[in-house]
Amino acid sequence: MELHVTVSGRRDLAGQIYRQLRDSIVDGRLAGGTRLPSTRDLARQLGVSRKTTLDVFERLLAEGYLISRRGSGTFVADTLERLPARERGHEIPQIRAATAAAAETTDAVGGASSGAAHGARATPWWQARAQAHAAGDTLPRLDARLACDFAGGVTDKARFPFDIWRRCINDALRVQARGYGMYREPAGEEKLRLAVSRYLAFNRAVQANWEDVIVTQGAQQALDLLARVTLERGDVVAVEDPGYPPARDIFAALGAKVVPVPVDGEGLVIERLPKAARVVYVTPSHQFPLGMPMSLGRRVALLEWAQTHGALVIEDDYDCEYRFEGRSMEPLKSLDNAGLVAYVGTFSKTIFPELRVGYMVPPAALAAPLARARQIGDGHGCVLTQTALANFMLNGHFARHLRRMHQSYSERRDVLLAHLRGPLSPWLEAVTPNTAGLHLAARLVAPLDAAKVAAAARGASIGLHPLAPFHLEAPVQSGFLFGYGAVDAGQIDAALTSLATLLHTL
Amino acid sequence: MELHVTVSGRRDLAGQIYRQLRDSIVDGRLAGGTRLPSTRDLARQLGVSRKTTLDVFERLLAEGYLISRRGSGTFVADTLERLPARERGHEIPQIRAATAAAAETTDAVGGASSGAAHGARATPWWQARAQAHAAGDTLPRLDARLACDFAGGVTDKARFPFDIWRRCINDALRVQARGYGMYREPAGEEKLRLAVSRYLAFNRAVQANWEDVIVTQGAQQALDLLARVTLERGDVVAVEDPGYPPARDIFAALGAKVVPVPVDGEGLVIERLPKAARVVYVTPSHQFPLGMPMSLGRRVALLEWAQTHGALVIEDDYDCEYRFEGRSMEPLKSLDNAGLVAYVGTFSKTIFPELRVGYMVPPAALAAPLARARQIGDGHGCVLTQTALANFMLNGHFARHLRRMHQSYSERRDVLLAHLRGPLSPWLEAVTPNTAGLHLAARLVAPLDAAKVAAAARGASIGLHPLAPFHLEAPVQSGFLFGYGAVDAGQIDAALTSLATLLHTL
Repeated sequence: MELHVTVSGRRDLAGQIYRQLRDSIVDGRLAGGTRLPSTRDLARQLGVSRKTTLDVFERLLAEGYLISRRGSGTFVADTLERLPARERGHEIPQIRAATAAAAETTDAVGGASSGAAHGARATPWWQARAQAHAAGDTLPRLDARLACDFAGGVTDKARFPFDIWRRCINDALRVQARGYGMYREPAGEEKLRLAVSRYLAFNRAVQANWEDVIVTQGAQQALDLLARVTLERGDVVAVEDPGYPPARDIFAALGAKVVPVPVDGEGLVIERLPKAARVVYVTPSHQFPLGMPMSLGRRVALLEWAQTHGALVIEDDYDCEYRFEGRSMEPLKSLDNAGLVAYVGTFSKTIFPELRVGYMVPPAALAAPLARARQIGDGHGCVLTQTALANFMLNGHFARHLRRMHQSYSERRDVLLAHLRGPLSPWLEAVTPNTAGLHLAARLVAPLDAAKVAAAARGASIGLHPLAPFHLEAPVQSGFLFGYGAVDAGQIDAALTSLATLLHTL
Repeated sequence: MELHVTVSGRRDLAGQIYRQLRDSIVDGRLAGGTRLPSTRDLARQLGVSRKTTLDVFERLLAEGYLISRRGSGTFVADTLERLPARERGHEIPQIRAATAAAAETTDAVGGASSGAAHGARATPWWQARAQAHAAGDTLPRLDARLACDFAGGVTDKARFPFDIWRRCINDALRVQARGYGMYREPAGEEKLRLAVSRYLAFNRAVQANWEDVIVTQGAQQALDLLARVTLERGDVVAVEDPGYPPARDIFAALGAKVVPVPVDGEGLVIERLPKAARVVYVTPSHQFPLGMPMSLGRRVALLEWAQTHGALVIEDDYDCEYRFEGRSMEPLKSLDNAGLVAYVGTFSKTIFPELRVGYMVPPAALAAPLARARQIGDGHGCVLTQTALANFMLNGHFARHLRRMHQSYSERRDVLLAHLRGPLSPWLEAVTPNTAGLHLAARLVAPLDAAKVAAAARGASIGLHPLAPFHLEAPVQSGFLFGYGAVDAGQIDAALTSLATLLHTL
């Protein structure tokens, strides 16, 4: 038998030798029953002390990789013979030891025959199941290489007061260093829940005590938790069509049957709701992606429908903070005397999306189950961020930031609308009413293909995002979503001037 | 008609009046068809300008709460008549306006009759379903009022280098302020995944590239994601008995059938595994709660069983970092050539639990579905924490912290074992081998009731945590879990000295 073990440097020699021997055994290159050289011979061969090789053997014996037969030496244990064999594509770790016999085994395992061996093994059931989870829609992502990308779901981080935020985080760090082994409430840090409840009472006419607020990892987790505690496989969830793909995705991922319901100029068409719907997911403040608010009549009709059919309404108030014309219409939740509405909000559009903080105010009966679902799902959110955000809000920085950004986004929106109503009007028409939020939708009124327009625009370094991917069954409204969270007024002006020139050539 | 509207101060008078009128309409205290006073009369009555009341009416008209009939005045719209009525216990918001007629309505709604009305309404289906999610085990929590609480799952935050951590967080803040609108990878920040892969390769013989690592919101979310992408309702998940309640909880919450399998001195008893098990959840490094490692023979047998039965093994390596006797046995994952093991780890035992950072190295085929499940479940984790932790690890602070804490925890463990083997030996016996982790389990060998002993200890300001709640079907091993993450050697010595005295009296 020839045994190659490489030692490099003088650090942790025993560890180096241990790992190489162990890996050879686990890999099957040192087969069960193989007799090892004596610790004395191995030490001489490797140029290390006998104590080192003794240590290695002792550990391998203690762990069961080697067995010792009195008088005849030390052998590789048979135990490992039963280990399931290597998967194809599973790389061999950095190992440089092999006996002559084991070298052949290595070739056999790493070479051509392993493909056949693997092919013969059935693909594990979980692989097939998991693949179903890998599919799904994705929202358009901001492409920073473009001169002007109208992607939605992005805010202007350059104008976020990071100096103040840094102070809030550092204050939160001091609190965290003192908070010795404290239990964290899965529903979120109390101060943040208080700050959110005040904000909702003042800005959104949602009357909630701090205990009614559950802080989540973005609005998306609120949808996830609501679906978990209320839905069973096959339950019908009604969603707006066109609508918000990540909401559809999470309901579908949890086994619900997602049924699209058309929207018109007043929002969701209530009479088209499927009678079996257990949950209705809506965006009444600023319909995603078209942007119109739901009318009061529809709001009342929806609550009435929910009461009659025993449905839970999930109101995603995702883009309510910036209102540019008239006053903000107050949310469904503020009309909900009967406890039918789970209200969901987010800081992704007001601070920045990667903060990953959202919140919900569920019907009272769901509060404890939702907190428990969060506890067993992932425990709780980032304490540091929550504490910092509470201070940021309670000290008035959030309100100031909202006012500043309102001004800034309003300018961008004006530039965008001026182009849509002016030079771009032969091709595009803004969906109205569209008075809030960080994006506008515009319909393509010219007989052009949205995908082709988007491709051409891309060539001119303009990111346009067609409305088609937001549709399920409703006839596709050809057009684009114009997000203006991450592009300033000058960029918008330049890009839309180019776009008009470009559209003339199509 | 008498209409009471209160205005306080001079700020946002229109808003104050708007909200009170709107709330009265939504509440039904101003019934549909009620004629409102003229804006002129209302302005005079409230002592505000006519412009203010005109603004209020205009908004309420625009939103559809009021309707105007030419020549006959302004009326409450009928629309709201259809709003579902108040739920019992739903507090009326702060409103001070009512007509005489509406006042009666308020009484009727808020008074005794509302109970009957509410009682008549069926409890929503979601309430019953959600209740099932509110149940479940909970781990013992640290009670800071006790002189010495042996709760598990807590680390010594007082010894965490918060000064260095603060620098890492502040560096991360600078990165965040620069990272303009960047897409975040749901599997976690790349640098942290790199740091974890290096740590696992060096410390745990787990060969993983950074792409193989998925960062999670604590180990618990890793279990949640694994269960989501692989399990369907009714699937069998085998768990250790006694075992870790939060793992059982998450599998059960997602609809799996949780089947307990006994453990003995070598860990899980493989021949007792149910043949139908699709997933086997184990804690091989340090069985929870008993503390012994799984023997090599059992590890091989488990992998062989998983291969034969097509099961996925989830290895929770939750408490592997601190090893006090011998060397750490390397994890199942390092024996797994066939891609059967999803390896799960956490920083909760090494940094502090509220950091909420864990990770997993799944079989390759599950990586993309798991990342997608995270994306649609909650997007991603706290970027600030992940970036800071990556720096903390890559700059060697984590390794230094582990060495320091090893020393400190080792002292505590020695004191604990000295008491168990000495003065406490007539009553308690440490479960062996028990060579790692932040807790020890000790069996009650005297004929005493563990709950009674715990109650008596509590009277002496000592927190003892019986093993019983960790059992499902296996005969209860009477005894306690002794966590020493949050109690120093002096506290342990004093508490166990008192405990011996106390036990003499029982």
